[in-house]
Amino acid sequence: MKTKEINLVIIGFGVIGKGFAEVLADKHDFLRANYGVDLKVTAICERDGSVVCKKGIDLDNVVELSLNNNLKAHENWTTLKSLDVINKIRSDIVLELTPSNIETGQPGLTHIKESLKRGMCVVTSNKAPLAVEFSQLQKLAKNSGAELRYEATVGGALPLINLRKHALQVNNINSVQGILNGTCNYVLTKMADEYVSMDVALKEAQNLGIAEADPSYDINGIDTGAKVVILANSLLGMDVSFKDVAVTGISDVTTEAIELARKHNHVIKLIGDVERLDVSPRLVPINHPLNVSGTLNAVTISTDIARDITVIGPGAGGKETSSSLFSDIIDIIRSK
Amino acid sequence: MKTKEINLVIIGFGVIGKGFAEVLADKHDFLRANYGVDLKVTAICERDGSVVCKKGIDLDNVVELSLNNNLKAHENWTTLKSLDVINKIRSDIVLELTPSNIETGQPGLTHIKESLKRGMCVVTSNKAPLAVEFSQLQKLAKNSGAELRYEATVGGALPLINLRKHALQVNNINSVQGILNGTCNYVLTKMADEYVSMDVALKEAQNLGIAEADPSYDINGIDTGAKVVILANSLLGMDVSFKDVAVTGISDVTTEAIELARKHNHVIKLIGDVERLDVSPRLVPINHPLNVSGTLNAVTISTDIARDITVIGPGAGGKETSSSLFSDIIDIIRSK
Repeated sequence: MKTKEINLVIIGFGVIGKGFAEVLADKHDFLRANYGVDLKVTAICERDGSVVCKKGIDLDNVVELSLNNNLKAHENWTTLKSLDVINKIRSDIVLELTPSNIETGQPGLTHIKESLKRGMCVVTSNKAPLAVEFSQLQKLAKNSGAELRYEATVGGALPLINLRKHALQVNNINSVQGILNGTCNYVLTKMADEYVSMDVALKEAQNLGIAEADPSYDINGIDTGAKVVILANSLLGMDVSFKDVAVTGISDVTTEAIELARKHNHVIKLIGDVERLDVSPRLVPINHPLNVSGTLNAVTISTDIARDITVIGPGAGGKETSSSLFSDIIDIIRSK
Repeated sequence: MKTKEINLVIIGFGVIGKGFAEVLADKHDFLRANYGVDLKVTAICERDGSVVCKKGIDLDNVVELSLNNNLKAHENWTTLKSLDVINKIRSDIVLELTPSNIETGQPGLTHIKESLKRGMCVVTSNKAPLAVEFSQLQKLAKNSGAELRYEATVGGALPLINLRKHALQVNNINSVQGILNGTCNYVLTKMADEYVSMDVALKEAQNLGIAEADPSYDINGIDTGAKVVILANSLLGMDVSFKDVAVTGISDVTTEAIELARKHNHVIKLIGDVERLDVSPRLVPINHPLNVSGTLNAVTISTDIARDITVIGPGAGGKETSSSLFSDIIDIIRSK
C-alpha cells in the first residue's frame, strides 16, 4: 500500500485535543500499516500561541507539557495565534477542537471558515459553529472543494453521520431521537437508582469530573439542543439553527416524578427529538433501547427500510471522541 | 454525477431475495439520484430455473409472480440453473441469497466460489458458506480481484462489518458479544414477561411467523454459532469455522431460572461470545445495553479507544436485511 503523508493542524488543546494527540502517538504506525496514512501534526494552537514544527511535533512530549500547563516551554513554541497558523501554514486537514460560544459559534466559526476558504479540509468536534451556521458552512465547503466533517460533534464516539453515509444509504430517515448528554443522563440515573435529589446527584457528578463547575449548559438542555440542530441538518435534511429548537432542561425533574414513572415501568430521560426540534424530559419505557444508564449516550435512527437502529456508547471523553475524529480523517483521505 | 450502470444477478428468491427486489423497485430512482448508480437485475435464479432478461427484469412483476408461486409463468423464464447463469451471464455483482446447509455451506458455497473465480463481486446474506470456509473465500476473493461482502449475514439490518470499516478504523476490537437470533430473544422475552413455558412461547412465535416449523436451528444456538464464526473472522481477525464454536441453545432454560434471575435484577439471554467462541444462555443485568426485548438483535463491540459501542435493531426480515445488502453494493461501487 502506498503511504500518503497527511499534515494536520490542531486548534484547541483541551481534553479532546490532548486525547486525539495521545491516540495518534499510540496508533501512528497502526494507521500507516492498515490505512496507508502517515499522519503528522505540524502545528498545535492554544489561546496564547502555538507549537509549530514542519517536521512533525513529538506528541508524547507536547501532551506531557500541556498536562503540566507548560506548553510554552516547548522548544517550538511561538506567539502565532490560530488564525496566523491557518493563514501561514499549509495543512491537509485542520482539526477544530476549541470550546466555542453557542450563540456566536466563536472562535471556532472563524477558524472553520478561514480554513475552508484556503481549501483545507476541516474535521471538528465543535458543536457551536455548526449549530449556528450549518448550511452556510456546508456551502462554503462545497464551493471551496474542501471537506467539512463533524462526526465528533454529536455523541462522542458514536457513529451517526458516518452510519448514514456508509450503512444506511438506501434508507430514508424518518426521525431521530436520543440521549445526547452524558451529564444529564448520569444525574437522572443516579436520582432513579439511589433515590437522591438532583442537587446530590449533580454534586457527585461534579466530584467525579462528569459535570462541570457550572453545569447549566448541560442541565438546561443547551448542549443537547445544539446536537439536535446538527442531526436535523445532517440526517433529516433540514435547514435550521439553534434558535429553532424548543429546549427544556432537567432542572424541574423531581425524585417524586421519577418514582411515579417507575411505578408505571418507565424512566425519565432528557430526549433530543430531532424531527420535532424539541429537547425535553420524557418518559421512556424501561425495556426501550434508549433506556441506558450512567453517562452513556443512545440514539435511535428510524428509517423506512432498516426500521429502528439504535447506537449506544460513550458520548464524551477525549480518547473516545478521537475515535470519531479519526473516522472522519480516514474517510477524507480515502475519498481524495 | 455520472451514472454507473450495474448489472445484478440474484440467486435465491425467498424472503430476502423478494425483500431486496421490492426495495430496489421502490428505491431505484433514489439510488440513481443520490449515489449515481443505475442498478439493473438481469437474472433471478430459483431452484428449478431462472428468469433472465438482459434489458433488466421488471421487479414488481417478478415479486408478484413469486408471491403466487408462479415464477415459471414469467415470459423470460428459462430452465437455466444458477450455475449456468453464473457461467453464462456476465454481471457486476452476484447476490447470493439462498438458504444453505450449515455443515457443507452448499449450495451457496459453490455459487460464491464460481462467481468470484469469474471476477464477479459477491454480496451475500448467506451465513453457511462463510461459517464453513471463511478464510478460503477471502483468499479466493483477493486473488480474483473481486470483492466478497457479507454485512447481511449477521444481524440483518445492523451495521457491524461496515461499522468497523467506516467508523471504528482507529480502534482495536477486543471483544464482541451479542444477541444474534431474534427467535430465541422473542421466546426468552415472552417467557420472562408473561411467565409462560418455552413450549407456549415457541408456539406463539411459530403462529406469528417468527419461528419456523422446525425451530431447532435457532433454539439450539446453531444460527447464533454461525454468526459468531463470521464475526470472529471478520472483526477479531481469527481463522476459525463453525466446528470451533461451543454451542449451547436455550432449550434447557426454565421459567424458574428466569424468575430467579429477575430477583437479582438480571435477565437470561442467548449470548454469542465471539472472543471466546461460545454460544450459551447467560445472565445480563437488566440495565445493560444488551437487554433488548422481542425479536431485536443487539451487539456490543468493545474497543480500546471508543470503548463499548452497542448497535440494536431488527436482526431479520426481507426488507430490513436488504438495507445491509444495499450498503455493501454501494460500497463496492464507490470503491471501484
